[in-house]
This record gives sequence, structure tokens and C-alpha cells, in this order.
Amino acid sequence: MNKIDPWGTELIEDYARLIKDFGLEPMEDFLSDFPKPNYLMRRGIVFAGQDLKQIADAIKEKKPFYCLTGMMPSSERIHFGTKTVIEMVKYFQEQKAKTFVLIADLESAATRGISLKEARERALNFYIPAYIALGLDPKKTIFYFQSENDQVKNLAYLFSQKITMNEFKAIYGEIHPSRILSALAQAGDILFPQLEEKMPGVIPVGIDQSPHIRLTRDIVRRTKSEFNFFLPSATYHKFVPALDGSNKMSKSNPNSFISIPENPIDSGKKMSKALTGGRNTIEEQKKLGGIPEKCMVFEMYKQHLIEDDKKLQKIFDDCKKGKLLCKEDKENAVNLMILFQQDFQKKLDKAKKTRKQWKFFK
Amino acid sequence: MNKIDPWGTELIEDYARLIKDFGLEPMEDFLSDFPKPNYLMRRGIVFAGQDLKQIADAIKEKKPFYCLTGMMPSSERIHFGTKTVIEMVKYFQEQKAKTFVLIADLESAATRGISLKEARERALNFYIPAYIALGLDPKKTIFYFQSENDQVKNLAYLFSQKITMNEFKAIYGEIHPSRILSALAQAGDILFPQLEEKMPGVIPVGIDQSPHIRLTRDIVRRTKSEFNFFLPSATYHKFVPALDGSNKMSKSNPNSFISIPENPIDSGKKMSKALTGGRNTIEEQKKLGGIPEKCMVFEMYKQHLIEDDKKLQKIFDDCKKGKLLCKEDKENAVNLMILFQQDFQKKLDKAKKTRKQWKFFK
Repeated sequence: MNKIDPWGTELIEDYARLIKDFGLEPMEDFLSDFPKPNYLMRRGIVFAGQDLKQIADAIKEKKPFYCLTGMMPSSERIHFGTKTVIEMVKYFQEQKAKTFVLIADLESAATRGISLKEARERALNFYIPAYIALGLDPKKTIFYFQSENDQVKNLAYLFSQKITMNEFKAIYGEIHPSRILSALAQAGDILFPQLEEKMPGVIPVGIDQSPHIRLTRDIVRRTKSEFNFFLPSATYHKFVPALDGSNKMSKSNPNSFISIPENPIDSGKKMSKALTGGRNTIEEQKKLGGIPEKCMVFEMYKQHLIEDDKKLQKIFDDCKKGKLLCKEDKENAVNLMILFQQDFQKKLDKAKKTRKQWKFFK
Repeated sequence: MNKIDPWGTELIEDYARLIKDFGLEPMEDFLSDFPKPNYLMRRGIVFAGQDLKQIADAIKEKKPFYCLTGMMPSSERIHFGTKTVIEMVKYFQEQKAKTFVLIADLESAATRGISLKEARERALNFYIPAYIALGLDPKKTIFYFQSENDQVKNLAYLFSQKITMNEFKAIYGEIHPSRILSALAQAGDILFPQLEEKMPGVIPVGIDQSPHIRLTRDIVRRTKSEFNFFLPSATYHKFVPALDGSNKMSKSNPNSFISIPENPIDSGKKMSKALTGGRNTIEEQKKLGGIPEKCMVFEMYKQHLIEDDKKLQKIFDDCKKGKLLCKEDKENAVNLMILFQQDFQKKLDKAKKTRKQWKFFK
């Protein structure tokens, strides 16, 4: 059985296996239930979920539901994996989800030694506008600081009764008191919108975060008589590939990693060095075609840089046929990355000006 | 080495041993440092402490210091052990300690299934007035609800980084996630007054609560660079003896236990059945004298019912000489208990009328 560590860095390759082991729902089975699935859903980047039907039904029946995500204001860079999450939040927000975004200032204080004041500044000056730049509607999103949300911390406290040490170990592997508090607080985050209004909610996360969802679902089952929460739904996305093909894209390996934002020229340079699915020689590639399935450049197109399915398909086909070679394709990729970074910077500057519209839950 | 379990019920007999094992300070060594020690300190009911000098110095030098205690609003009865704590809080309050009383509404919700609303009602309608009836100055005490104190919960979160699972086990023995949260929240309670004003503080507790003090002191040492808290001082009182001599006075054993309040007549009846240090026959007792050291009635005098040292000494001497026999003495004890309960009820009714004076930290 796969063990998923939300604090670890290993790459999980066999997503089908994960679906089976953890009883997840394959996204492809639910595509027809959701109106206009976005490119991540269509392409299986968001490859699975849990209790997707209750969210699809809420959308269809125009019933209230919510979507929640968070930000850890530790550095002033965002990971492409976070972009994927925000795309999903944006999707649900467009389907009328009440949208909550928590700022994990307590967690960044506890784990990174960043003061609450500093975390607040970073959130206001970078993370919130960055999330807006990536697609959130500033007028329709409710932000809150962990340090100011009593309800979340009170829930964490109450939930602590419901889980034993052994269950924590079974879900998380090795544990530490801070991880217990962090996990329980996340369960509080995931469920607190239901204190105000009983409704289903969906949490888009990377598959490495699935233990938190599992814990929260266990807690919901055990607090039925007190709270009668809806089980939280989730969508799970794959890891963002490392540019050098080494492992998942991780800040600890700078060659693997392009952040948002990054100097456009630098980010382009990194794209130009990415591992491709090219053959040993140009002749061979013209003859046999490239291998886009193993190409990190193609993976970046698919996950982030090309939303248009037809354009993506054409690149795939041309590569397969040996018509599109790596050199030419990389020029395209470098350009797309530079454009992405420039566009993000523009949107970020614009988002900063919406500050008066931001709503904070307190 | 003694293991003290703050959630357990065993009786600890050898207090001298505890002082040695845990490196506590014997109260008798500090009696001359404190102005007008109260009867609990004089008699060694409060038998030990930690860092007592910094509190004695603050009193002497008229420097700020604080005293903190809590209440668990789970039933509408108070234990005589709590009365001892309040006597100590009252003592320090009279020496100008800033006084904080937390209402553990979250803990009573988590461990006893009492809703936060119900806990609040019980605190307002019974516990707060009861603490005032037992001696707290309603104008000089700051109360707060755990569920509303963000600072305490944020500290708990930050502290969770500083203690490993093994250290928790070493301090508490068997652990559960809820105990970890509860212990960390208590460390937050003990230290949060120092966020507003750096000053030493003293926590009067039963010796069974010493692990919480130990944990908090460890945390203070490890957060020196971030917070630079004063190490918390503590006073430790002995267990209240069970009336039947069986074990410490515990709600789970009704024959052993008189609560505050209790119907005066019922409480008197229980006193009349208490285990004494009497001899097998009246003749024998007249000849050999009684054994007040083994008498639960005498212990109740000493710990709770007789503040005047001379009166207590006279009873002791008369018993030892065989002049005062158990029957007569018990009539006295019954009367004192009835008077205590009646007096408490009067003070409680009066305390309820001070509600407008109560100050809440939020």
C-alpha cells in the first residue's frame, strides 16, 4: 500500500494504484457531471477526487457549497502546484462556490520562524494579490488569518478527542506534536465554513495532502452527533514534474524548479534546459518521432502553459511524427514561460490595487 | 521515581520524596520570605513550590507579578482542593498579584461534552461567583474563556514545535492527542499574561498538576530567543484527604467526598461518618489519647475548617491527651462543616450580585 506523506518529497508515479489503494474516485468518471470541466480536469492533471457527486449536484441544483484553500506565507514565491490548486478554486468559484482562503500565519510562525506580523505583511503584499492574479475573484473570496480564527482553533481542540495516537501514526507515519496540532487545525479549517451554514465543500489539493482529507473525513464520521458536518469533498492533482526529470518540482532542487513569479529571462533559461523526450540524434528523431509522454516541456504545456486542447494536441502529434524537434519546441516553451511570467507580473500589480475589495473573516 | 499523572487518581503519600525527586522547593524554607503566610503555607498543606523567590522578591520590591488559575465548568460543584487553590490565589491577590482566571470551556466541551454555551452559563451562574465567594476580589480579577482567547491558542500552536513525542511521554506517561492539545493550551494559559507585560507569575496547583508546570518551564527555556518569558513559579498543595481514609477525596467515591456547595445537613452527616484517629474503646482513648495525625476530621480542620492556629493546636493537644473524644469532636466538626456550607451559600448569593464588576479579557 502506498504511504503518502504530506510533509515529504517523494514522487508518486502510479496514480491508478493510488486511486485503488485509497478508494478515490477517478476524475474521468465525473467529467460529464461537472459543467464545462477545465483543462486540468479534462486532461487528468486533476486525476481523482472524493465525494465529487455532492459537489456536482450542488452546482446542478444551485444549492450552496463552498471551496477552501490556504496559503503559507513563508517566502514570496508560489509553486506551480499552487497554481493548479488556484485553477480549481477558480473553477468552483465560477460555479458559485463560497470561497474561503486561509492564511497559515500560525503555521509559518511555528515551522519557519516567521512572526505573525511578517506573515501578515507577506500575505497582504504578495500572496493574496498573487492568488487573485492566478484567477480568484477578489470580491467573492473570504480570506482569514489562522491566528485570528477562534472557530478553527476551537474545532481543532474538540477534534483532538476523536483521534488516537495510533490512528495519527497510521495516517501520517512518524508524528510530532506540532504535526498533530497542524493536522487538527487543518481539519478545523476544512470544516469551519459549515458552522455558519451546513453545506458540502470541496478542497482542491495535491495528492500529497490527501492524509489531511482522510483525517478530516474520519473526524466528520465521529462527530456526527455533535456537528453533523458534510463529509468534505476533494480534488487531487498530480505532482508538478521536475524540469530536469529528477523528481517532483521542489524548491530544494533549484534546477527542477521555476517559481511564480520568477525573472522571465531566468525562467525561460530554465525551460531551455529542461529534460525532453527527444531522441539521440536529429535524424533518429525525424525518423521515429519524439516521446512527449516523457518530455518535461510537454508536461509543462499540459499542466500549465497551454489551455487550448487543440494546440496541445497539435504539438503532441507533430512531435510524435518527428515534425516538431526539441530545439524549435523549446523556443516556443521559453516564449510561453516568459509570457506567463510577464502576464503574471502585470496581473499581480493590478491585483494589488483591489485591496479595498478584500473581505476578511474575523 | 514518582510518576505524577495529572489525569489520574492515585494518592501520593510521601511528599518529602516528591520534593527530592522533582527538585521542588519546600515551602517551610520560604516562609520568612513571604509577608504573613496564610494558614496553608504555615501548616505545610501548601508544602512546596518552584521559583518562589522571584515571587517573594516581587512582593517585597512592589514589582508587578501575576497569579493564574482556572476553572473547569463541568458540574456545579467545587472540590475542596479547589478551595485550597483559591485561598492561595487570594493570598497572592492580596499581595498585589495581577490575577487571571481562565474558564476552560473548550476543555469541558472536549472532555465532558458540555457545549460552549452551557459552559459559559455555568461559569457565569456558578463558578465565577463561587470563586468570588471563596475569596477572590471581583474587581481585581481578570476572567477569560479559553474559547475566546486567541493568544493562548496561538501560543499552544507555536509551543507544539518545541516538545517531542518522547518528551511528552516522559512527562505525562501515556498520551493522547487531546492531552497534547490540552497540555500545550495550559502552557499558553500560564504564559500569556507575559505577552502584555513581562513579569514573573505564580500558579497555585495541586501536586498532581505539576507535570503541566514542568512542561511549561521546559517550553520557556526553549523559547528564550523568541519570547524570553520568566519561568513560571508554582505552589503545590497536598491532596485533600478522603473522609473515609480510602484515597484522595474524589467525586468518583461519594463517601469520601463533600463538595462545595453541598446541602449543609448532608455534608454534616458525611463528616459524622468520617474516619478518625480514635482508639478501639473510650477507655483506651482516655488512657492513650487519640491519633490526630491519622484522623480525617482533624485533617479537614487543618486544611479547611479552622484557620486559627491556636484553636487547631488546642484540639490536637486535647485529642492527644485523651481529653477530647471523637464523639464530641465530631459534633464540633459537623457544626463547622454546616456553618461553612451555610456561609458559602450566603457569600455565593452575594457574589452573584457583583456581576457588573467582573472583567473579561478578550
